[in-house]
Amino acid sequence: MKSDYSFTLLATDGMARRGRIDTWRGDVQTPAFMPVGTVGTVKGMYPEQVRDTGADILLGNTYHLMLRPGAERVAALGGLHDFMDWQRPILTDSGGFQVMSLTKLRKLTEKGVTFRSHIDGSAHELTPERSIEIQTLLDSDIIMQLDECIPLPSEHKEMERAMELSLRWAQRSKDAFGNQPHRSLHGIVQGGDNAELRGRSAAGLKSIGFNGYSIGGLAVGEPQEVMFRVLSEITPELPTDKPRYLMGVGKPDDILGGIERGVDMFDCVHPTRAGRHGHAYTRFGVINLKNARHKDDPRPLDEESPNPNCRRFSRAYLHHLIRTEEMLGAMILSQINLSYYQQLCIGARTAIEAGTLADYAAQTRATWAAGDIAVI
Amino acid sequence: MKSDYSFTLLATDGMARRGRIDTWRGDVQTPAFMPVGTVGTVKGMYPEQVRDTGADILLGNTYHLMLRPGAERVAALGGLHDFMDWQRPILTDSGGFQVMSLTKLRKLTEKGVTFRSHIDGSAHELTPERSIEIQTLLDSDIIMQLDECIPLPSEHKEMERAMELSLRWAQRSKDAFGNQPHRSLHGIVQGGDNAELRGRSAAGLKSIGFNGYSIGGLAVGEPQEVMFRVLSEITPELPTDKPRYLMGVGKPDDILGGIERGVDMFDCVHPTRAGRHGHAYTRFGVINLKNARHKDDPRPLDEESPNPNCRRFSRAYLHHLIRTEEMLGAMILSQINLSYYQQLCIGARTAIEAGTLADYAAQTRATWAAGDIAVI
Ligand SMILES: [Zn+2]
Ligand SMILES: [Zn+2]
Repeated sequence: MKSDYSFTLLATDGMARRGRIDTWRGDVQTPAFMPVGTVGTVKGMYPEQVRDTGADILLGNTYHLMLRPGAERVAALGGLHDFMDWQRPILTDSGGFQVMSLTKLRKLTEKGVTFRSHIDGSAHELTPERSIEIQTLLDSDIIMQLDECIPLPSEHKEMERAMELSLRWAQRSKDAFGNQPHRSLHGIVQGGDNAELRGRSAAGLKSIGFNGYSIGGLAVGEPQEVMFRVLSEITPELPTDKPRYLMGVGKPDDILGGIERGVDMFDCVHPTRAGRHGHAYTRFGVINLKNARHKDDPRPLDEESPNPNCRRFSRAYLHHLIRTEEMLGAMILSQINLSYYQQLCIGARTAIEAGTLADYAAQTRATWAAGDIAVI
Repeated sequence: MKSDYSFTLLATDGMARRGRIDTWRGDVQTPAFMPVGTVGTVKGMYPEQVRDTGADILLGNTYHLMLRPGAERVAALGGLHDFMDWQRPILTDSGGFQVMSLTKLRKLTEKGVTFRSHIDGSAHELTPERSIEIQTLLDSDIIMQLDECIPLPSEHKEMERAMELSLRWAQRSKDAFGNQPHRSLHGIVQGGDNAELRGRSAAGLKSIGFNGYSIGGLAVGEPQEVMFRVLSEITPELPTDKPRYLMGVGKPDDILGGIERGVDMFDCVHPTRAGRHGHAYTRFGVINLKNARHKDDPRPLDEESPNPNCRRFSRAYLHHLIRTEEMLGAMILSQINLSYYQQLCIGARTAIEAGTLADYAAQTRATWAAGDIAVI
């Protein structure tokens, strides 16, 4: 294990990048998908099961963890890694996104944001400095600055105001972070769907200087084509020697498009949430196991999958588990979806190394479009 | 693997017995606790996780499976073992107990029982013959006769009526079962809390002749001392060369008392249900992880447990998972409880072989009574 954080760009293919992040808790192969351990657990999975899907790194939600069990408590218990028994790297968000999306009675000022918990109504304050402090208490390996994330579409003035506030908070976050060689700090590019605002945000962040650059304020209501256009405009403005992380994205098709546009890291609750709702991601696209077509189908989801859970259980059994709302159904489909997301990233890494990402992407999209195997 | 079913009595200690059931799907060491896979899954656990707790055999619920997904469907899909990917022995109940406890508008006649599903109100009929047919369709290894199980206390006349009906159904079950050398059929002793009725039931069943003898109609409202008294009266009336199974029992203390009174097999939903509710069974007795005393406790549940889940997670983390109603909390505590039940049985087997069951039972009860480790 290295004692410092570093990023190595191993190969490129068009805008796409193949890299490796080294941390003292282990390396992260990129492009990387990070499962979300919202409140100290990836829902329905033991940590070793998450690791076995191929995940190198998890995301922890600062907002949820600061409310329950509380950052000081996690610190007293030895940090988030020991708390949840995940000894590999953890990235934490700043908490800002959930404050904006989940809480009521919140008030945003230059200083930070005050809000009431969505659980018990208790009052809390989050500032750039407090967010860094919380993430440090959690013992996060990759820390996010506090930013203001607004929905799309928004007025230009509003996008500019939020972007400039986020930039001032970026500087305060950098100051608060100080010198922590074992950890990494990310600035977050904002600016909505406007290229000029995004460019000013990226330039401002670069002049402050971060270990990595996150792209926030996307997947907040805009069409996929707008997200892809913004990505194509912004990744060339970011340093090539630092990782880029597209926050809160997305479905497999979003991730493939993000990889093609130079993104290195992704996270999303979608694979586990979709799993709990009976949806399985496979090379045949998304399969709704609630559907009656699976009721008597003895075939596995995908007999050629490298994931044993895709081969060992019949569609009829998965249908039955989902219909009876058995925990095991949610557990299996969460595992299947996280595993598929990792396979997608592994495939992209191999293709970028070989310079064949366009072929890989085209073939992947073709099998998605061809859809599921025929009804029995 | 042997091709036929057999039971071998390996050792005795007082009334207690150490034995082995051989089936072509593997052996079952007794005394045995059977986790309940209600509707084709032990709640919150992969089949290999159930096996890893030490379980040799599962119980499947005929009532639940006949409604969803349906016995004919399970048969078409290759039987219950393939359906749920559990390749070791499965015992099924007759369905009668759930019909009596869960359904409305049921009507009991000499022929059998008609009822409406508690799920969708659909009409169904269960007769001794149909119960055998369903259990055979499920590909059960150890089959139960249909019986009538009534609550305690009940009137003598009512206990006698139900016992005599169960005996007539026992004969019809035996006739319907026919010659199936790979499977085993159990008669069920009824007769409430009355020794004379229980004795007549046992005698009647013995004269019909079964591969094993179940004790039904207990843990249906009576105090534990009544259950123990009935067990002490009835097990001497049963053949020594066949296994005895106490149905639907119970908590660890019930199981230990049952073993002392000559019972070989047990099942109960309690360990997984208690786990979902935040209760952990340990050598310190039952621990309620919802309790605020665990909130900041970095210690594991039991650092000397042979079960890794009792050592790797802090009480604070388990408390947090239960409080946030995370699936992983239910998963871990279900595993911990099933594992503890298996440890209890393993300890009893070793003690019976050594002729030291009384010491083992006294020591186990003493650590339960001493309670949890001191608050930190
Ligand atoms: Zn998402
Ligand atoms: Zn029970």
